[in-house]
Amino acid sequence: MPGFRATVLTLYPEMFPGALGVSLAGRAMERGDWALEAVQIRDFAADKHRTVDDTPAGGGAGMVMRADILAKAIDHASPEGDARPRILMSPRGRPLTQERVRELAAGPGAVILCGRFEGVDQRVIDTRGLEEISVGDFILSGGEPAALVLLDAVVRLLPGVMGNETSGEEESFEGGLLEHPHYTRPQEFEGVAIPEVLTSGNHGKIAKWRRAEAERLTKERRPDLWAQHKS
Amino acid sequence: MPGFRATVLTLYPEMFPGALGVSLAGRAMERGDWALEAVQIRDFAADKHRTVDDTPAGGGAGMVMRADILAKAIDHASPEGDARPRILMSPRGRPLTQERVRELAAGPGAVILCGRFEGVDQRVIDTRGLEEISVGDFILSGGEPAALVLLDAVVRLLPGVMGNETSGEEESFEGGLLEHPHYTRPQEFEGVAIPEVLTSGNHGKIAKWRRAEAERLTKERRPDLWAQHKS
Repeated sequence: MPGFRATVLTLYPEMFPGALGVSLAGRAMERGDWALEAVQIRDFAADKHRTVDDTPAGGGAGMVMRADILAKAIDHASPEGDARPRILMSPRGRPLTQERVRELAAGPGAVILCGRFEGVDQRVIDTRGLEEISVGDFILSGGEPAALVLLDAVVRLLPGVMGNETSGEEESFEGGLLEHPHYTRPQEFEGVAIPEVLTSGNHGKIAKWRRAEAERLTKERRPDLWAQHKS
Repeated sequence: MPGFRATVLTLYPEMFPGALGVSLAGRAMERGDWALEAVQIRDFAADKHRTVDDTPAGGGAGMVMRADILAKAIDHASPEGDARPRILMSPRGRPLTQERVRELAAGPGAVILCGRFEGVDQRVIDTRGLEEISVGDFILSGGEPAALVLLDAVVRLLPGVMGNETSGEEESFEGGLLEHPHYTRPQEFEGVAIPEVLTSGNHGKIAKWRRAEAERLTKERRPDLWAQHKS
């Protein structure tokens, strides 16, 4: 059985595996290193129109996904004893971090509910212990693209997936800083040379330059990370 | 000609349109409301192995995408006079915001370069004026899942795309707060009723409750947003 099993609850199962069926993640899936099952939430609707949503209590725009239908879908995908965390992709959630990605990759998998419309009835979040995770402060058409991002981040950390393409794993956020600029051949591109220090062979100087650049970029682009880094 | 034209430069063109070919975005694409072209970066390589990367100047793990090859791909996809912004999906970039999403949706489109491996030679970022955008503080296998997320956020704002599914557009971040909890029928779910205030019919009280809940959630989950909101 694959070490990591993802079950995605969605109104659009045809969006999966999508990008996850290609490249490293796709080959790892073919080898059985991980598995992905997409479950159609509408299969748990009770009426012939397969309705999953209703108008919001208290009024307002949009539609809300029903607790009873979602609970049936979750209970089917994740029966008692299933140790996998249950996640709801939601702009209201806690922001996804590399730390959480690492924890998920070390676990048995994840059951991921993709919200659509205005949101999900709070009672299914509460009773089913859903962990709300956000991939950023922007609004998507639904949780599906966010689920693809979360799974991509997790799958690349699974044993054997990266293979030769592996590199400085956590480099992008090492020490809580953004990564320094990169250069490679050709030595000169449109009249601009690679910074001299990088071709100096002086490893101490190179490390110092990279560190200084990482700090400069972090201050400039991410005052929030910089403040955390200094504290 | 579609109002919004996206060109994605990638080593994995088969990842597109992916989730963007389904549901609202897919139907809007079929209607010609927007267009997506995926360009294979390897088509611009100069050798028979179609190499696009080389080892990092100054040493270190991983591979860096070459400036000269990427420049050729960008110049082909986005010749002089193309008014579309050029974006590099990168964990080093500025975080994507709903404000930037809105600006992009109001424009002619976007040329999106998906980084892979350790990163991209800085000189192509500088000479081609690439705007680095991040979708979060986590590491993906490449820029492709991030590009899918960015385009999903943009496409749902294009005229006519949301149709009847439109709802309180920016509600998720209205006033810089996370959204309040939602409820819908059934009135009682597993013994838990919808909060009484929401079925009271008292619109003033409902608005007040929602506001208080939004503030509570924001304080609890996003002290960063809460600090901005108060200032």
